[in-house]
Amino acid sequence: MTRVCIVGCGAVGSLFAANLATLDDVEVWAFDLSQAHVAAIEANGLRLTGAGEVHARLRAVSDASLLPPCEFGIVATKAMHADAALAAVAHALADGAVASVMNGVGNEETLARHVRRVIRGTTFPAGKLIEPGVVQWDVKGDTTFAPFEPSPATSVEVEWLADACTRGGMPTHAVADARPAQWRKVIFNASTNPIGGLTGLTHGRVCERPDLRALVSGLVSEGKAVAAAQGITLDADPEALIDHAAKPDVAYNHKASMLQDIEARRLTEIDFLNGGIARFGRSLGVPTPLNDTITALIKGVEKSWT
Amino acid sequence: MTRVCIVGCGAVGSLFAANLATLDDVEVWAFDLSQAHVAAIEANGLRLTGAGEVHARLRAVSDASLLPPCEFGIVATKAMHADAALAAVAHALADGAVASVMNGVGNEETLARHVRRVIRGTTFPAGKLIEPGVVQWDVKGDTTFAPFEPSPATSVEVEWLADACTRGGMPTHAVADARPAQWRKVIFNASTNPIGGLTGLTHGRVCERPDLRALVSGLVSEGKAVAAAQGITLDADPEALIDHAAKPDVAYNHKASMLQDIEARRLTEIDFLNGGIARFGRSLGVPTPLNDTITALIKGVEKSWT
Repeated sequence: MTRVCIVGCGAVGSLFAANLATLDDVEVWAFDLSQAHVAAIEANGLRLTGAGEVHARLRAVSDASLLPPCEFGIVATKAMHADAALAAVAHALADGAVASVMNGVGNEETLARHVRRVIRGTTFPAGKLIEPGVVQWDVKGDTTFAPFEPSPATSVEVEWLADACTRGGMPTHAVADARPAQWRKVIFNASTNPIGGLTGLTHGRVCERPDLRALVSGLVSEGKAVAAAQGITLDADPEALIDHAAKPDVAYNHKASMLQDIEARRLTEIDFLNGGIARFGRSLGVPTPLNDTITALIKGVEKSWT
Repeated sequence: MTRVCIVGCGAVGSLFAANLATLDDVEVWAFDLSQAHVAAIEANGLRLTGAGEVHARLRAVSDASLLPPCEFGIVATKAMHADAALAAVAHALADGAVASVMNGVGNEETLARHVRRVIRGTTFPAGKLIEPGVVQWDVKGDTTFAPFEPSPATSVEVEWLADACTRGGMPTHAVADARPAQWRKVIFNASTNPIGGLTGLTHGRVCERPDLRALVSGLVSEGKAVAAAQGITLDADPEALIDHAAKPDVAYNHKASMLQDIEARRLTEIDFLNGGIARFGRSLGVPTPLNDTITALIKGVEKSWT
C-alpha cells in the first residue's frame, strides 16, 4: 500500500484524490482547510460527477498533524497558498516525492523550500466544487510529470506516480522535461484569463475583438520569448489552443477562472501567471511590458476591494 | 449683441453657458438633448453652485432647428457625440467660429467636417449636473483657445471668445498654438483615468502602487513621444500634474470620471484619450503599445455590458 497525500483538495485536488482512491494499492489522504469539505469526505466519501462519475472513500483532514508519513504528495492548492500549506504538511512528506499540479510557474521552487524531492507537473483537467464532498468534473485532460531539475524526485518515483494516476483514471505522462507543457499552459492562461478578468468578457468574446485578440497575441509572444530564453521548446503553439477554445462548441461562453475570482472578490493567481512570466523574464533579461501591465492592473483590482 | 451657442450643455457646457450669460453683450443659446435640463433652464435659468455661485437666464433648446444663426459655438458634448451634435446644429453655426472644449484629441477634426472656422480648445474646469438646471462647479481652472491649424478661425475671433469667457468668469487664454496645453491634458487624462477605470482605485491609490505608477509613467512616455513627433513642446510635464493630484488634499480620493462612467455603465471617451493618442501615433509611426492595450481593455469592458 502506497500513501499519497493530496495537499489542497479543491476542484483539481479532488479529481486526483477521488480517482487515485479507486486503486487497491493506494491509500489517499487529503489535506484541506475546508472543514465542511473534509467532514463530508470523511462521512460519505468524495464524489465526482460530470465528465466522469466516481465515488471513493479516502481519509481527509484539516489538521495536518493527523497526516501519516506519505510516499507521495500532489499539491493542488491555489499557487499563493502553497507555501503555507507545505509548511503545515512538510512533516508527512519529508521523505516523499511531491508533485505540483498548480497553475502557473514558480510553484516547484516553492515546494523545494519544504521538501527534497520535487516533481514538476502541469495538468489540464478542470472542475468546481459544487457542495462539500461533491465536485463537478468539467473537463478531462492530460497531466505531465517530470523531475524538478534543481531538486529532482527520482525517475522511478515520477513514473510510479504517473502510472498510478493513469490507472486511476487521470491520464498522466512521465517525461524527462515537463517545462514545454507547463509553459504552454501558463502562456495560454496568462494571455487569456486576465483579459476576461479585466473586461468581463467570455473567452470567445475576447477572441472575436481584433484589438483584444492582438493583445492576447502580444502576451503570448512575450511568454514565448521568456520560454525560449530558458531553452524551452513549447510542445504546441498556445495560439492554436486559444483559437480552438474560442470556438462556439468549446469554450466560447466560458468565463475565465480569474473572471470568476474577480466577480467573487477572491485573490487571483496573477503572481504565478503573468507575474511569474514577468519574474522569469526579468531574471533572464527578457522584457515583458504587457505582462507587467496586466499584472499591475489585476493587483490593482484586488487592492480596490480593501 | 453677439450670439454664442453652447453645443452640449452638460457639466462643462453649463459652466460656459451660465458664465457667458452673465455678460450684457452676449446672448447664449444652449443646445442639449436632455429635455428636462432644457426645460428647467428655460423655466428657471441655469444655476452653478460650488466653486462659484452663478444664476443666469439663457435660451435652451433640444430641437436644433430652433437655433438662430450664432457668431460663435462652444462644443462641450462627450467627444463621441460631437459628430451627431454638429450635424444637427451646423445650420446655426455655418458662418460662426466654433471652439471645442471637449476631452481628448481629434475633436477639432470632427468640428471641421461641419463648419469652416474652428478653434482648438482645452479646458480644465470640471463639475457635475446635480439636477435639471443646476450644476455643481467642482474645480475652477483655465481654458486655452487657438486657431485650429487646418481650418482656422481668425485670431480676432479667437481673442473675442477668450475675452468674453474671461469677462464672464472663465479665465481663458488666446494663444497661437493650443496643442501644448491640449496634449498635456490628454496625456494626463489618458495615463490616469482608465487605470482608475480598470482597477476601481482612486487617483491617489493608483499612484501609491509602484507597479501601477510605473504603468502610468509608461503611458505618459508614449504620449510625450507622440506629441514630440508632431513638434509639440508640452507647456508642463504631465508627471508633475499626476504627482500633484495624488496628494491627500488634492485628488487622492477622486474617482476618475472614466471609473464613474464604468460604474454607471456609460460609454467612455477612450477613443479620444488613449485611442486618440494611439491613432496619432500610428499616423506618425510612433509605437504606443501600452495605450493600445488600455484602449482595447476599456472597449472590452464597454462591450461586456451588451
